[in-house]
Amino acid sequence: MKKYVILFVVTAFFVTVSCKNENSQTASSEKYQSDPLPSWNEGKSKASIITYVNDVTNSESPNFIPVSERIATFDNDGNLWSEQPAYFQLFFAIDRVKEMAAAHPEWKTQQPFKAVLENDMAELAKQGEHGLIQLVMATHAGVTTDEFDADVKNWIATAKHPTKNVGFNELVYQPMLELLQYLRANDFKTYVVSGGGVDFMRAFVTEIYGIPEEQILGSRIKTAFDYNNGNPVIKRLPELDFIDDKEGKPLNIQKIIGKKPVFSSGNSDGDLQMMQWAASNKYKSFMLYVHHTDEVREWAYDRESHIGRLDKGLDQANNNGWTIIDMKTDWKVIYPFELK
Amino acid sequence: MKKYVILFVVTAFFVTVSCKNENSQTASSEKYQSDPLPSWNEGKSKASIITYVNDVTNSESPNFIPVSERIATFDNDGNLWSEQPAYFQLFFAIDRVKEMAAAHPEWKTQQPFKAVLENDMAELAKQGEHGLIQLVMATHAGVTTDEFDADVKNWIATAKHPTKNVGFNELVYQPMLELLQYLRANDFKTYVVSGGGVDFMRAFVTEIYGIPEEQILGSRIKTAFDYNNGNPVIKRLPELDFIDDKEGKPLNIQKIIGKKPVFSSGNSDGDLQMMQWAASNKYKSFMLYVHHTDEVREWAYDRESHIGRLDKGLDQANNNGWTIIDMKTDWKVIYPFELK
Repeated sequence: MKKYVILFVVTAFFVTVSCKNENSQTASSEKYQSDPLPSWNEGKSKASIITYVNDVTNSESPNFIPVSERIATFDNDGNLWSEQPAYFQLFFAIDRVKEMAAAHPEWKTQQPFKAVLENDMAELAKQGEHGLIQLVMATHAGVTTDEFDADVKNWIATAKHPTKNVGFNELVYQPMLELLQYLRANDFKTYVVSGGGVDFMRAFVTEIYGIPEEQILGSRIKTAFDYNNGNPVIKRLPELDFIDDKEGKPLNIQKIIGKKPVFSSGNSDGDLQMMQWAASNKYKSFMLYVHHTDEVREWAYDRESHIGRLDKGLDQANNNGWTIIDMKTDWKVIYPFELK
Repeated sequence: MKKYVILFVVTAFFVTVSCKNENSQTASSEKYQSDPLPSWNEGKSKASIITYVNDVTNSESPNFIPVSERIATFDNDGNLWSEQPAYFQLFFAIDRVKEMAAAHPEWKTQQPFKAVLENDMAELAKQGEHGLIQLVMATHAGVTTDEFDADVKNWIATAKHPTKNVGFNELVYQPMLELLQYLRANDFKTYVVSGGGVDFMRAFVTEIYGIPEEQILGSRIKTAFDYNNGNPVIKRLPELDFIDDKEGKPLNIQKIIGKKPVFSSGNSDGDLQMMQWAASNKYKSFMLYVHHTDEVREWAYDRESHIGRLDKGLDQANNNGWTIIDMKTDWKVIYPFELK
């Protein structure tokens, strides 16, 4: 939950130019059968991934990694799906405030809710981090885990991205879906390790990414168990429990997975500590940064961005020889709908 | 971390009568091939387990459970291994204090360390919960996760139970090992969900239970990431982070697994909320309580015990028709070494 998210949500509501890609390419089914990464252009990034996987899964190789240690961790926002003009979870919070407003007449005069209801993003920005947390708590807490799950499922089924005009769940990266599948086919256990809310993600990403709920790590709020006369529920409380970002990523990986990743993929400085942790693995590890370079098909941003800033991470990736995906040249397509 | 643990550690040091079982039975290898639970006597407990598994894995059954939802959670202390005369992790803490004492001359005069070093368990008991937490923090924190892992591995390799005179890792329940294996053979994902320390367990139980580190949930202390000039470490801090007991069990299951168990096994009131949570599953679920009834081969205790008290849980199990293992009559053997 970052202060600057608010500043950028302004853009989300007023940008009207669609960046919809007109240059989609469809790989032939023949190609899919022979190439594990058909949406990737041939080049250094693709070659380095395939060389790594072939090496560490070859039992004759000195770099062979036992199956139980093949832990692959992926950031979500900006790494598996887009994150502009604001983290998609913020659109959920805003849409929920509007849905819930009828039951909360006081919100008409109470900030930050008033600003949301009036689409006054300049005012919302002024509410700062405190206002953002109020929005999140009002929309993510005060319900049971089952109720929240239903809220997210209902939202994702209909919500549209403000400029792409497709569902947020369609804005996942086709090349990364192929990479996840390729790693799993080679007995890697794929995880999401995101600063986003873990229960928000679990409500819908399993189906898209092929990653079960128990392999999704994220930020979370506190909860309480209520026996509820034999119909127990877990209630979501309006208090932060853990922020799965920066140092939080390796800490959460250690707490929950208990093993150091051998493959780690991210796109921002918030992923850097996870990368450093993977890079220190005694097994040969692979660090992959997605560099957002495609202002036509997706968005272009890095060192100066308030969302998904990639600055120190880019330096360390360059210095240490980590693989950096140039989205513009490395990826044939960005989104799955381009294949249709 | 319970106050009463201290009271019982007194017993650990002075009980000298060995309860070593002389009545071990060896099942023939022929029996093992045809019977998934060869160390279980025929009876209601065994039959109910097999009937349940056959039912919910039968795709023609109205009770069929999809593989992704076959989550089985097992308490550890008193459920997968013994827990008398004190939780085994406490013996680790005591042994570590003795090992570390040379580097801590101040402990000779400082409680609760003085009591441990002088084997003065009456005095240790007087130190109460505060003293116990001091012991735990001195022996479980102040090191990196790798160092702690090595500490536990070194300890378990040589430490002996005070009365059974075998390694603590030999005091696991053979019938439960078979049950874990049987469930996995039927595509259940088996988890440990214990009040014990998660990193303590991860150091050695994977090999014994066949449960990977990422499927072990437990209590934990706080941690910090240190980049350490390119050799990052995670440091263990002397502060509790989460107690995975009572309400903590369903909360931790929801946080980490994100799914309600369909099969849950425990032995104490500390497991009751986990049982209640599983019992509320929309899929047909199975609740299994281990009742310690065998004072000859193991220990006999329930409603009045300070370690592993089973009181409210026993009532609810009886009322709700949950399966209760009568250790004395249901299990042919208790420990794997009885089969040798």
